[in-house]
Amino acid sequence: MTKVTAQMSVSLDGFYAGPRYDGDDWMQSAECAGFYRITRWATNAMAWRERQGFAGGESDVSSDIIAENFEAAGAYVMGRRMADGGEVPWGEEPPFRAPVFVVTHRPRPVLQRKGGTSFTYVTEGVASAIEQAKAVADGKNVAVAGGGTLVRQVLAAGLLDELDLHIAPVILGTGMRLLDAELELGEKEGIELTTTRVVSTRDVMHVRYSINGRAPLLLDNRGRTD
Amino acid sequence: MTKVTAQMSVSLDGFYAGPRYDGDDWMQSAECAGFYRITRWATNAMAWRERQGFAGGESDVSSDIIAENFEAAGAYVMGRRMADGGEVPWGEEPPFRAPVFVVTHRPRPVLQRKGGTSFTYVTEGVASAIEQAKAVADGKNVAVAGGGTLVRQVLAAGLLDELDLHIAPVILGTGMRLLDAELELGEKEGIELTTTRVVSTRDVMHVRYSINGRAPLLLDNRGRTD
Repeated sequence: MTKVTAQMSVSLDGFYAGPRYDGDDWMQSAECAGFYRITRWATNAMAWRERQGFAGGESDVSSDIIAENFEAAGAYVMGRRMADGGEVPWGEEPPFRAPVFVVTHRPRPVLQRKGGTSFTYVTEGVASAIEQAKAVADGKNVAVAGGGTLVRQVLAAGLLDELDLHIAPVILGTGMRLLDAELELGEKEGIELTTTRVVSTRDVMHVRYSINGRAPLLLDNRGRTD
Repeated sequence: MTKVTAQMSVSLDGFYAGPRYDGDDWMQSAECAGFYRITRWATNAMAWRERQGFAGGESDVSSDIIAENFEAAGAYVMGRRMADGGEVPWGEEPPFRAPVFVVTHRPRPVLQRKGGTSFTYVTEGVASAIEQAKAVADGKNVAVAGGGTLVRQVLAAGLLDELDLHIAPVILGTGMRLLDAELELGEKEGIELTTTRVVSTRDVMHVRYSINGRAPLLLDNRGRTD
């Protein structure tokens, strides 16, 4: 059965990048500095490098997890900002090797790339993008590729089945936070999860959650037996 | 050697309770609802119940970790709000069984309790409280018992050696966050950690970090080998 999955690299305090920067020199921004620190584990991994066309890298459990996630995805859903930012660096043969559905307000013809990647621009919203991705995923997962705003929207809308967090052992203090108040939970309501896998290495801790959904926060008797 | 340690139960999005509530019916507050959800794993554990004088509970790895942390602490440092809030519920024989140094602005005589617990009120600040706790810890750890504001202060001041997070598989959306902007990190600076232990159960994931300290966030070549 097709699951809707997402994965994000985050700092221990939940940021996927430094504070948002919209200027002309992103490489010099704190957004970039935070993003690079948090995602360094991936750029060190052989499976990530292979998808980018780079040699070398570590062949370790983190690399295996990257390979597994790429392999499990039959189609992707992506936010507009991430798609725009990646268009040039991903080049003629992007790392996805599957159809990508970009959630955007701007209509645009399908962009065909080499190696199986295509970008289809969806203006009917995130639920429609997920439906279109499911229709072509061929039984594999629909992976929400990011950015964080889109992952949060999919989670808030109850459309996410599984969340992989790659937690880097660093505290950033500020930045763009994956799980922020935009989730719009009720004041005594939580989103309950089940931890299904934990793999920890020196550079990153991989935690997989299945999403059970919203539930009220109930009180208990604090262990009293009387 | 005496280490300064801290442990906190937090949600996956980093909250240790719901939004702060200062009214008269805390039990009906969202702060309480969040706190209860996040700490439920502990109240279910035999080692926690035993320290509260309650029977029963689970004798499992989470209980072992609670017992180990209690055993490792030779003295505690605690925030004023937590100490005030606990004074009545902890009763005549509080669970600490060691000297507790309360960081406060209000001088007050030492409060002696049964079972080895005492509360000493320190008005010279958190560093002084830690020094006083170290002096009586007898080679064991100084445990920063909370609340979250104090743990954050100790971390921000570079005084924390080890942080145990007990991460409950729930997202709260809002509340009191352990790692927030009050850490006052530079815009391209992080606090680097080393993951030293991960233990995951159905109800909670225990992650232990040693604190390496502040470091600049450096760029890299994103895996390029050319």
